[in-house]
Amino acid sequence: MCSVNPGHCTLIKFIFLLLIIIHLSLNTAESVWPLPQIFIPSPERYQLKPQSFSFGYRRYLDTKHSCSVLDAAFKRYFSILFPGYSYANLITFSVFTLTISLDRHDCEGYPNQDSSERYKLSVFAGQASLNAETVWGSLRGLETFSQLVYQDDLGSYYINKTEIEDYPQFNYRGILLDTSRHYLPVQAILKTLDAMAYSKFNVFHWHLVDDPSFPYQSHKFPDLSNKGAFHPVTHVYTQSDVRRVISYARMRGIRVLPEFDSPGHTKSWGKGQSELLTPCYRGATPSGTFGPVNPTLPSTYQFMLSLLKEVASVFPDPYIHLGGDEVDFSCWRSNPYIRAFMHKMGFGLDFSKLEAFYIEKIVNITSILRKTSIVWQDVFDYHERRRFLSVVEVWKQGCYLCEVRRVVKAGLRVILASPWYLDQPGPTHNWARYYNVWPLAFKGTEKQKSLVIGGEVCMWGEYVDATNLSPRLWPRASAAAERLWSNERQTSCVERAFPRLQEFRCKLLRRGIQAEPLYVGHCKHEYQTV
Amino acid sequence: MCSVNPGHCTLIKFIFLLLIIIHLSLNTAESVWPLPQIFIPSPERYQLKPQSFSFGYRRYLDTKHSCSVLDAAFKRYFSILFPGYSYANLITFSVFTLTISLDRHDCEGYPNQDSSERYKLSVFAGQASLNAETVWGSLRGLETFSQLVYQDDLGSYYINKTEIEDYPQFNYRGILLDTSRHYLPVQAILKTLDAMAYSKFNVFHWHLVDDPSFPYQSHKFPDLSNKGAFHPVTHVYTQSDVRRVISYARMRGIRVLPEFDSPGHTKSWGKGQSELLTPCYRGATPSGTFGPVNPTLPSTYQFMLSLLKEVASVFPDPYIHLGGDEVDFSCWRSNPYIRAFMHKMGFGLDFSKLEAFYIEKIVNITSILRKTSIVWQDVFDYHERRRFLSVVEVWKQGCYLCEVRRVVKAGLRVILASPWYLDQPGPTHNWARYYNVWPLAFKGTEKQKSLVIGGEVCMWGEYVDATNLSPRLWPRASAAAERLWSNERQTSCVERAFPRLQEFRCKLLRRGIQAEPLYVGHCKHEYQTV
Repeated sequence: MCSVNPGHCTLIKFIFLLLIIIHLSLNTAESVWPLPQIFIPSPERYQLKPQSFSFGYRRYLDTKHSCSVLDAAFKRYFSILFPGYSYANLITFSVFTLTISLDRHDCEGYPNQDSSERYKLSVFAGQASLNAETVWGSLRGLETFSQLVYQDDLGSYYINKTEIEDYPQFNYRGILLDTSRHYLPVQAILKTLDAMAYSKFNVFHWHLVDDPSFPYQSHKFPDLSNKGAFHPVTHVYTQSDVRRVISYARMRGIRVLPEFDSPGHTKSWGKGQSELLTPCYRGATPSGTFGPVNPTLPSTYQFMLSLLKEVASVFPDPYIHLGGDEVDFSCWRSNPYIRAFMHKMGFGLDFSKLEAFYIEKIVNITSILRKTSIVWQDVFDYHERRRFLSVVEVWKQGCYLCEVRRVVKAGLRVILASPWYLDQPGPTHNWARYYNVWPLAFKGTEKQKSLVIGGEVCMWGEYVDATNLSPRLWPRASAAAERLWSNERQTSCVERAFPRLQEFRCKLLRRGIQAEPLYVGHCKHEYQTV
Repeated sequence: MCSVNPGHCTLIKFIFLLLIIIHLSLNTAESVWPLPQIFIPSPERYQLKPQSFSFGYRRYLDTKHSCSVLDAAFKRYFSILFPGYSYANLITFSVFTLTISLDRHDCEGYPNQDSSERYKLSVFAGQASLNAETVWGSLRGLETFSQLVYQDDLGSYYINKTEIEDYPQFNYRGILLDTSRHYLPVQAILKTLDAMAYSKFNVFHWHLVDDPSFPYQSHKFPDLSNKGAFHPVTHVYTQSDVRRVISYARMRGIRVLPEFDSPGHTKSWGKGQSELLTPCYRGATPSGTFGPVNPTLPSTYQFMLSLLKEVASVFPDPYIHLGGDEVDFSCWRSNPYIRAFMHKMGFGLDFSKLEAFYIEKIVNITSILRKTSIVWQDVFDYHERRRFLSVVEVWKQGCYLCEVRRVVKAGLRVILASPWYLDQPGPTHNWARYYNVWPLAFKGTEKQKSLVIGGEVCMWGEYVDATNLSPRLWPRASAAAERLWSNERQTSCVERAFPRLQEFRCKLLRRGIQAEPLYVGHCKHEYQTV
């Protein structure tokens, strides 16, 4: 009914509105966001009661050998299903049970790039069954289950007979938070992780440090935050804070990808680590200001090895983001020692060669630490030798699919961020801008397209902190979430998505997420100001 | 040092930055927002301690005959001055007293358009004195006093020797909230009133009802909200809610100006009041849809008299906003009875004459009720007879000062809203757009300029509800607040205002207002996510 031609919906709005009305009156349970791959609803419905609802395990798992990730999820989702109630797990007579089975017992590990998130959910008389290959897939299924439950006007809970088979379109579905331009209290990060799980995002890209501040409290280099954070006590992430974020994310099937961006974007590093940054010169004398990391000194690489070794052990994810964007060459150019090094290395006047020299060394360090590196597209764009790269994140505006194509043609993997720079304020009704994105709409082989591993919403911090983070992210980021999870053909119509996204936004409010409105209207449970 | 040429600041930024640094290091107490008219700070400082600080009355007022508005303000401001402490008023030995004297004992009334807000504040050794003509002026002085108090790094409180004489540039300094496109919980309105008082706004323009919903619960016409609100119980303002808002506002020296916009923008009215709206026709038969209020029926005016009579008694302010904007004539044109009425009245095909006919009648009703009416500029623009108008609110974009000039030349008073449509999201760093506004920069006599009674920030509700109201309003609305309160010549430099507004925004955070950041940086006390 809807053209699959990406970005264009040919069906007349009038018919859609009619269909939406029919659809909504038929079955209020049908709206799951992001849309599952196979979704067979039915008008037959069953009542749920908090007093007689339970979660259970099946196959490989019994109550003696349970899964801590799922046990915690049962508590969370019980409160989401039945606000005001908490899960006691002491139900003597269960009338409705959601039984979970896992193909693998992988509750102790961390989700990673290759984790299956596939699940199968059946709701039928008096029970529901959720099967998944991994615990992470079962978390996605629990989220879907929670969205199927609804209340009638009298407050009774219902769920409809439903069959769902589901898996994500892309394995990497990230949100970047920037904690350098503004410090985000840990609570704001945890709240974002909650909301991410509701939209089935699975990577928290933590842009920890940058020019303005260095809030990561390193145990090897405490001066980095002592001198480089906005405040050494109140505006830092301690090791315990970081562990808390990683653990909170893991419980929700979310990876934490740390970024330590260099050699540019490092002004704050220089405050606590002398001789790391390049002294800029005015004529023959140092000007007193500093530029990017100094790539000519062996001490730089000793420091970076030591820091990244710590980062590699603190963050369990097999990937590290190395940044590498927007390196300003003017300071390097001004420094006679850098120029002498360039001459010695035969780089001529091409400072991008010096940058490549640096990045290659850092990528090598990352490899030694058995981590895979991700870099911003600048590293790919400005260097001829690209074999040493693994994953490139495309962020620049313009023809970003041209760039995606260039990267996959070079045999490298891609994360697409360009269309999802949500730190830019804009009318919420422009959410369709973030929905009408087609990451695979470029000429390429199937193999090349498989190199596009996913996408990422970037919430840069120049104008964002805990005061406006949530309404600026949600529900606009959820539009990107559906693009990254769901089938492109089934979700190509903005008009069809609109009422579903509106309903999902009301669910976010009900769950305490400060998601801004898409347009005129109301939710049964409005956001409560404190 | 700074050119007074409106909108243009000639001093080189470099020198300003230097001055700002000197300024900040010299005296952290100097930043009061909006800037007082006469402000003589001094480096001499006195310590304040919560245990030995008190408020006191002088002249016409003693403890037996105290002022309830001020007593409540003492409690509020004590907690603002000393977070974590509450005002006991049982201090046996006061070391520092702020003594208030009023020229008039007007604590029982309401602030109005002519209320003096002038005050004089002196801080000297061991005490401070605040003199005002009215209790409303003393509230402004208390706000200023609270902004003068600061903490050093060890947590001790200080205030510097200071002399201030202050009064507003404009008597009408409003914020419009729209509770029809989205319902705003009462708590969100009260929180806005708090923040308004911090920026010395003095009018809450309550755009109560509009096309999408009618949340005002009328006791004469309960069906208006029973059928016209988003929900008849959870999404309405009861009489008690309205009283609470008015009382809360009064305690902060803020007027509540109700708007019942007609004859357009009334779709929701029609649900609970049959035969009020014009039936639209397709050819010779009614189409089933409705247009603006039907101006041809006597019952319309009986209803409006009855409704406005209630409104006039519920809202104590001497002004009522009657709307009158954006009337779509197509429905009137389609209706044969309307056309017959036009013919009978000799209006020809000029529907603006019909609109004028309606508005004149409504303005007359308002006069009978002894209220002054305010209308949107459309009413002024499209009617030749303007004598019956009093106050015109200019809202359209384009050359809004041309419009202001036209209105004052017609001898009418003006409220300027055009440059302050803050519902439009935009990068916070564009705050200067709302600061660089010069309401009197038109050719006119002094008498004509005196007819510009003030300005208003409009927060329309299409994309705004309780989730994003605060960060979208603050601190951008505070930029408008300084324009409306302070001397134009002293506040013509954006660069000089920037660090002061940044500091004021940190004060807002400290007071629990979710004010978004202006740019990269931090506050000592960040906003805490719940």
